[in-house]
Amino acid sequence: MTGKHLRFQFESITVSTQDPTALFRQLENQIREAIWQERLRAGERLPSTRHLAKQLGIARNTVINAYEQLALEGFIVTLRGSGTRVTDNFPPPSKDSTQESDASSISIKQADFSERYQALANHEIDISQGGQGTARPFRANIPNYFEFPRAQWAQLMSKKLRQKPDSWMERVHACGYEPLRSAISSYLGVSRGVSTTAEQVIVTAGAQQAIELLAKLLINPGDIVCFEDPGYTHAAMVFELAGAKIVTIPVDEDGLDVDELQKTISEAKLLYVTPANHFPLCTTLSQSRRQALLKWAKETDTIILEDDYNGEYRYRGRPLPTLHTMASDDRVIYIGSFSKLLFPALRLGYMVVPQQLIEPLGTIRWLLDRHSPALEQIVLTDFINHGHFSRHIRRMRSLYSERQKALVNAAKEHLADILELPPLDGGLHLIGWLNAGVEQKQLITAAASVDIELLPTSQFNFKTPQRGGVIFGYAPYNLEQIVSSVKKLRTAYWQSKNEC
Amino acid sequence: MTGKHLRFQFESITVSTQDPTALFRQLENQIREAIWQERLRAGERLPSTRHLAKQLGIARNTVINAYEQLALEGFIVTLRGSGTRVTDNFPPPSKDSTQESDASSISIKQADFSERYQALANHEIDISQGGQGTARPFRANIPNYFEFPRAQWAQLMSKKLRQKPDSWMERVHACGYEPLRSAISSYLGVSRGVSTTAEQVIVTAGAQQAIELLAKLLINPGDIVCFEDPGYTHAAMVFELAGAKIVTIPVDEDGLDVDELQKTISEAKLLYVTPANHFPLCTTLSQSRRQALLKWAKETDTIILEDDYNGEYRYRGRPLPTLHTMASDDRVIYIGSFSKLLFPALRLGYMVVPQQLIEPLGTIRWLLDRHSPALEQIVLTDFINHGHFSRHIRRMRSLYSERQKALVNAAKEHLADILELPPLDGGLHLIGWLNAGVEQKQLITAAASVDIELLPTSQFNFKTPQRGGVIFGYAPYNLEQIVSSVKKLRTAYWQSKNEC
Repeated sequence: MTGKHLRFQFESITVSTQDPTALFRQLENQIREAIWQERLRAGERLPSTRHLAKQLGIARNTVINAYEQLALEGFIVTLRGSGTRVTDNFPPPSKDSTQESDASSISIKQADFSERYQALANHEIDISQGGQGTARPFRANIPNYFEFPRAQWAQLMSKKLRQKPDSWMERVHACGYEPLRSAISSYLGVSRGVSTTAEQVIVTAGAQQAIELLAKLLINPGDIVCFEDPGYTHAAMVFELAGAKIVTIPVDEDGLDVDELQKTISEAKLLYVTPANHFPLCTTLSQSRRQALLKWAKETDTIILEDDYNGEYRYRGRPLPTLHTMASDDRVIYIGSFSKLLFPALRLGYMVVPQQLIEPLGTIRWLLDRHSPALEQIVLTDFINHGHFSRHIRRMRSLYSERQKALVNAAKEHLADILELPPLDGGLHLIGWLNAGVEQKQLITAAASVDIELLPTSQFNFKTPQRGGVIFGYAPYNLEQIVSSVKKLRTAYWQSKNEC
Repeated sequence: MTGKHLRFQFESITVSTQDPTALFRQLENQIREAIWQERLRAGERLPSTRHLAKQLGIARNTVINAYEQLALEGFIVTLRGSGTRVTDNFPPPSKDSTQESDASSISIKQADFSERYQALANHEIDISQGGQGTARPFRANIPNYFEFPRAQWAQLMSKKLRQKPDSWMERVHACGYEPLRSAISSYLGVSRGVSTTAEQVIVTAGAQQAIELLAKLLINPGDIVCFEDPGYTHAAMVFELAGAKIVTIPVDEDGLDVDELQKTISEAKLLYVTPANHFPLCTTLSQSRRQALLKWAKETDTIILEDDYNGEYRYRGRPLPTLHTMASDDRVIYIGSFSKLLFPALRLGYMVVPQQLIEPLGTIRWLLDRHSPALEQIVLTDFINHGHFSRHIRRMRSLYSERQKALVNAAKEHLADILELPPLDGGLHLIGWLNAGVEQKQLITAAASVDIELLPTSQFNFKTPQRGGVIFGYAPYNLEQIVSSVKKLRTAYWQSKNEC
């Protein structure tokens, strides 16, 4: 096969305009094959493009294109004075399959991963947490995007795309598109009682990124960060990656147990809390605990991160003022999200920060990924300013309240022998607390067998929980879906139980 | 003023439908004022909503709305059994102005910032680097978005917004929208000779975020990361924030000085390099140096980060194969950007990584900010697959080449006594090397006085450069703008020179 008589003859190349493959590709493929078969050897010289073109009766540009592609792929190289030659390190026929099978080509190993990442990997995070694609019962943490006013959104977007100047193609400030910051600041005053200048509002790629930016700005390795348990483990992981030490405080029906906090923790850099709508229990931090928490924070000089995600959704009782509103100083950083209010693929959130943090956070955001895409920021601004946003939230509030009731009733009727599903004052999900004798894993597996998703609450526990629970998202599912899915779940569970 | 006779009389509240302010706002404003004036004191009880509504002859809902807003803002609180009362920690009349002036309310201080951020802050980064808003001569690192095929882009976007299913509202994989990963992998094979599966392509929020993700995955504090000097300082800062130690290697007309690298560095975790188009010098790393670099990397077991940003733009000579193509193992991670090819506000880039890095990078991205917005990923996929992308790049390549020539000629004619502006094989900018006696700062200030932006190359030097230089971006400016701006610059410089 490598004998001289098999030497590649450039004259033997055949290219045809009948072939649907472009001429230069036909040429390129034959030369590549010849190199792999060693009929063209390393160091061998190729004819000049002019010569080969003439010989094959094709345009010189066709040959140039083929040579350029082969050069790019590392098969040939053109050196001044010595013409175009076959390289001695051209890629093998199928690089990828080789890479997978050949251990010697694997140069980046697990041991090369950072220690912090390796520690994190032990948590076994599901990277597609909550899943991709279309929402289906009872996947949680998803708003009812099926009834998002898409027509208005599309109209606002189309208008911007057509308009001059092309501001949607231009860079915006790392801290966010200024009119959006202004719209958010007005909205927060009216709807959440949060008083802030537009400048103090920092737009982020979802609430999640706000946490990352703050971790980068504020956390030194070894710093203590307090979390509710159960709580938002994904935020805790971000702080862990930044080197923080996570300390947890239990939660009861009035939210974070501030008594316990006062008793056990005398020093911390930061405390993360979800007062309006605890994640994942959807309880509300009581007024007296809010005051006690702020007092503790002042005494221990701790920064508070108030995640007010979905604070808009409260179905019963008066909303309480936010910690940000109540604080007598500027130690409360307030975080909000649009992805959880409008649609999941919209990656926009924000935080309200004291004056002295604006520029540092902008610098870090600039280094991290510059800024959020301009178009979405511009369209969201109009969406808020034209009143679509508030209208949508109001509509969803009454819809979600109705759906929650339907879920509670359906569970009472069909699932009472499996779990208890009490109503909650806020949030987009309920928690099914398992009856004694019901195995969490069995229930989740049975649900999956009929295409129903249940997430264990234990995913958000730092320590082992006392009672098993599963999360029932309800916001994006209509009454018919809710009732029929509850029935399906019942059947599937008892079937799997009988099969055991 | 606090005397009993001044006590607030709820009967004295006046609301009028003639007033354009909503009734509940009128009510709310008067109660808030009374609290600030201490005519309503902490602990004092407000009348019930029913009672006050009757007294004022307005709907009860109006009073409820006003009370809810005041409660949200922390002025009043409703407790079971004791009615609605004024709180003892209501916010002062203008919280923001107080915050700025009153040092006691500032609780987060510079000393609270992380040590790494503080070290970084010494670099004096301009967070709006390159500026916001419309591009103007000679701002650099901006593609010619004025001739971006906006009509096609808008059309593809409008189509998606109208279509069911609503995939643009749904979550996508943290590693990117799968069809986009596939489109990028095909594109890279054809245009850059990079062979990769779709799975190995990770979509990021611009190339900048790729660097952040890799730093998080691979860097332990103290790890050595090598950079070209001059080089992409913004990437170096990301590694510094992750705790890396930056070591630099000089660059000459053939790119990174690999001889020097071999002589001085025997151990490193990672090396960042821009072989196709050095940043900011726009030189090309020679073929022999590429081979030597790969050899060094293998011997020292160093991971190579090949930033191929704008590798598409090469105006003279054959493109060389990428390091990723040439490597015999999987130690080269390849990075590319769309923001620098299409328009700056599009925050999309990608990296090509070995198999074993896909999942870890997905996990980190998920924690960082979930994923890039779905809509832009979907539209970009169509834009590539329908051929608009390649067509645009081809068009821009010949346009940029023409603009570069115009800039070189204009500088020769008008700026020869100030600087030397040699043509370059690639990139979107040229470098004006200052003649002896020309002060960089004076030139930049003179330029700014006539609305011309020049960036000093020193911004990208780790050590003090030997010769002063300024960067002339040319891609987004037409021939008329280029010539007239060069003339304006000449006049402004000599004017400022004479004024000295």
